[in-house]
Amino acid sequence: CSSAPDWHSLTLNLHTVEGVWPLPQAFTSSTERYPLNPQAFYFGYGRQSAAQQGCSVLDSAFRRYFSLIFPDYTDGVDALSNLLPVCVLDNLSVSAGQASLKAETVWGALRGDYNQYILKDMYKQRVNKSYFINKTEIEDFPRFQFRGILLDTSRHYLPVQAILKTLDAMAYSKFNVFHWHIVDDPSFPYQSSSFPDLSSKGAFHPMTHIYTQSDVRRVISHARLWGIRVLPEFDSPGHTTSWGKGQPGLLTPCYNGGTPSGTFGPVNPALPSTYQFMARLFKEVSSVFPDSYIHLGGDEVDFSCWKSNPDVRAFMQKMGFGSDFTKLEAFYMENIVNITSALNKTSIVWQDVFDYHERIPKDTVLHIWKGIPAKYQEELSRITKAGMRVLLAAPWYINHISYGQDWRNYYTVQPQNFSGTEEQKKLVIGGEVCMWGEYVDATNLSPRLWPRASAAAERLWSDEKQTSNVDKAFPRLQDFRCKLLRRGIQAEPLYVGHCKHEYQGV
Amino acid sequence: CSSAPDWHSLTLNLHTVEGVWPLPQAFTSSTERYPLNPQAFYFGYGRQSAAQQGCSVLDSAFRRYFSLIFPDYTDGVDALSNLLPVCVLDNLSVSAGQASLKAETVWGALRGDYNQYILKDMYKQRVNKSYFINKTEIEDFPRFQFRGILLDTSRHYLPVQAILKTLDAMAYSKFNVFHWHIVDDPSFPYQSSSFPDLSSKGAFHPMTHIYTQSDVRRVISHARLWGIRVLPEFDSPGHTTSWGKGQPGLLTPCYNGGTPSGTFGPVNPALPSTYQFMARLFKEVSSVFPDSYIHLGGDEVDFSCWKSNPDVRAFMQKMGFGSDFTKLEAFYMENIVNITSALNKTSIVWQDVFDYHERIPKDTVLHIWKGIPAKYQEELSRITKAGMRVLLAAPWYINHISYGQDWRNYYTVQPQNFSGTEEQKKLVIGGEVCMWGEYVDATNLSPRLWPRASAAAERLWSDEKQTSNVDKAFPRLQDFRCKLLRRGIQAEPLYVGHCKHEYQGV
Repeated sequence: CSSAPDWHSLTLNLHTVEGVWPLPQAFTSSTERYPLNPQAFYFGYGRQSAAQQGCSVLDSAFRRYFSLIFPDYTDGVDALSNLLPVCVLDNLSVSAGQASLKAETVWGALRGDYNQYILKDMYKQRVNKSYFINKTEIEDFPRFQFRGILLDTSRHYLPVQAILKTLDAMAYSKFNVFHWHIVDDPSFPYQSSSFPDLSSKGAFHPMTHIYTQSDVRRVISHARLWGIRVLPEFDSPGHTTSWGKGQPGLLTPCYNGGTPSGTFGPVNPALPSTYQFMARLFKEVSSVFPDSYIHLGGDEVDFSCWKSNPDVRAFMQKMGFGSDFTKLEAFYMENIVNITSALNKTSIVWQDVFDYHERIPKDTVLHIWKGIPAKYQEELSRITKAGMRVLLAAPWYINHISYGQDWRNYYTVQPQNFSGTEEQKKLVIGGEVCMWGEYVDATNLSPRLWPRASAAAERLWSDEKQTSNVDKAFPRLQDFRCKLLRRGIQAEPLYVGHCKHEYQGV
Repeated sequence: CSSAPDWHSLTLNLHTVEGVWPLPQAFTSSTERYPLNPQAFYFGYGRQSAAQQGCSVLDSAFRRYFSLIFPDYTDGVDALSNLLPVCVLDNLSVSAGQASLKAETVWGALRGDYNQYILKDMYKQRVNKSYFINKTEIEDFPRFQFRGILLDTSRHYLPVQAILKTLDAMAYSKFNVFHWHIVDDPSFPYQSSSFPDLSSKGAFHPMTHIYTQSDVRRVISHARLWGIRVLPEFDSPGHTTSWGKGQPGLLTPCYNGGTPSGTFGPVNPALPSTYQFMARLFKEVSSVFPDSYIHLGGDEVDFSCWKSNPDVRAFMQKMGFGSDFTKLEAFYMENIVNITSALNKTSIVWQDVFDYHERIPKDTVLHIWKGIPAKYQEELSRITKAGMRVLLAAPWYINHISYGQDWRNYYTVQPQNFSGTEEQKKLVIGGEVCMWGEYVDATNLSPRLWPRASAAAERLWSDEKQTSNVDKAFPRLQDFRCKLLRRGIQAEPLYVGHCKHEYQGV
């Protein structure tokens, strides 16, 4: 077949390698190659491995990767558990008759995408239905521990299927945190067992546009099998309009002149009932979402409604806040953080909280979203100077689309290039690609996310020096995008060209 | 069910009507309503109608519309041809026991989207599995005769399935021309029976990335059943890099100093063989594509390669063109236009041709693509002043995306608002939404086109005075977008909100 490249003409330059993305930290390969026989190929656990058969995360990863490696041999998957181990967890190499992968944790082993690293991209060639693999050594680890994607299921409802598909695609780019911005002003799709009215009255539709407890469990368990943590966000005291429908008395009644206007503002911070409600809600949420982190929001609080309300003003006086509403906001957030701390959760909050909150717990993570497109470095510098950990989202607001190759902007971000000490740089725990939902639902989510988000993924995983050239990255990302298509992800093209296997349309 | 609106509270304000798009020219409806029984409902031909059973276009339209109207009663479709006529072609009204539609041509009858006008949008309410329709009178006709969409299958290959799906969606917005920009520099996917090497050497892949004769027939016949004409474009002399691979000697060899550089420029206008080839190709194309129009391109010709070539320069001298390469270009285009005129085709060319071509045939249509975003009015004025017919594309380059509601820009275009006489205004035969393919393939085509292209569709169909308010149009377009989803079109959201039936993702 004319499109099959000549084996011997392949160079081992990583940047030209078919679709290895993100780039591993260290990689050597020889021209020595071995045949792979799908009938005899199998994954297994090394004798010295602490993980053994029965480790559900790896068992299911083996099945998935087998199908990805040999798409035409899906029958083999069913027989998989009866086969003997070949892939052992005590070193990291491909040599005759054996490929092995060593990892300190199960999650690390999972991240060592077998298809991406050990087989497909290391020159596996399929010629006349036979497979080959080169002798190869890889050492790999992530640059940042937190590599997230935010989906917004309040501005538009995303069917569970669309979320699961996104989790698959996330794993292919080594993202490891799904930040679920699950509720916001427009709708409250989370079906709470403690407060069922929140969704029955606050969702777009009480039956078809909600996430049941079982939906949430499904998302979490699917994410877990891909080594992805699920970080729920219940943003307050602003961004809560939809909460008010199912929880009367929660939001602040706004006043016009001396009388209630009929509209509502942020959560009412002046009532004890507010904190009782929040304590109960977060107790439920903390148990439903097992991750040790929780996102509490805290962004964009509009003070005008609080200012208009006489009860809130009276509370300000009583508390000695004078007319400084940031103190009221700080008081509110402190209470919420205390509630979740007592539930053994580490809080993440939007950076706004840093600006008005002096007594913020030291383990809180500040989420940087301001300073787009260029001034976020100042924010990073300022907040890490106070010794706080930060998570960078500002340059990766991927819902903002523009014509052309805007992935280049996401790729060239330098998350640690700001004025500060080495200690400050280490406080950057990672980054997050945010897909806000004003103009996005299941119809356009996948092509808007992929492969644009993959550009950020390489920045968060790979060595910055090795991946500083955006033009060199381009053909590799194009190849990787074709691989995403092949894996069933509706990833859009980067520029003129084609993939061997095109998306066939609906 | 709480989401079912109260029948009696519905207003008859067209702008608030559920998803009628584009707006009809005249519409009156009373509150009198009639039940619709899917078991007894059927379409038929009026006794006075010239079209009768056996008219394949209407027969198949009846089947399609039945399914759209009663999605739960698809069984009924099979029995359809045995039923007696109810929908007759001799007047235009909905009254007790009968809905009728009168049209001068079969194509007009087809455009009278039964679902859109007669049933679904005129307050058909489904309550407890029963359907109703209001007593209604509609008079409707298009503002412009040419309402096109351009798809570019050269920069990316679009699988036939994606094209067919686009034709469906086009019909829902009353587009009536599919401008198939089938070949260009990057690839030549059209499989020519006269010159099979053009695709076997010029396509991205000679088997998987081509349109066979049978594919083309399928597209044309599918389009015909929707009342959509297929206008093929074989753009030359520029934009032809891919042609050169399968047709050696066609393109101009570029020179560097005194020797050929190995690269090629536009089609070589100095050789008789060029015109022999073109005559044979266009003879085939004219017969494969039965439409009376053909698009010959003629845009963006770069003279530098022609200038470098000594044979081309000698030809210039021989022809007395001096050093004016626009004369050479005009000579070339005249020859091509003569070839297609002899085949009884009317030519459409990009506006560039007007600028260098004095003896352009009067029936040629000039396609306006320059002057984005605001100066196309000057181009319209200048070209219609010469008495030429024009087709407006410039403000509808829909491949150019930006963040937010850019459909508003497409909606507020005024195609006849330029300096000129009434006669000049009449020379605007319509408009075209262009989806160029640099960044578009089957993964993102549908959500980028819909419902953004629908905004242009209303401008091309409806009365401008009745549809001048973009804010009033917004909720109606939102409803229409939900209808597109319901009809299986992956149309993206316009803003925060939801549809009853969401796209479920892959």
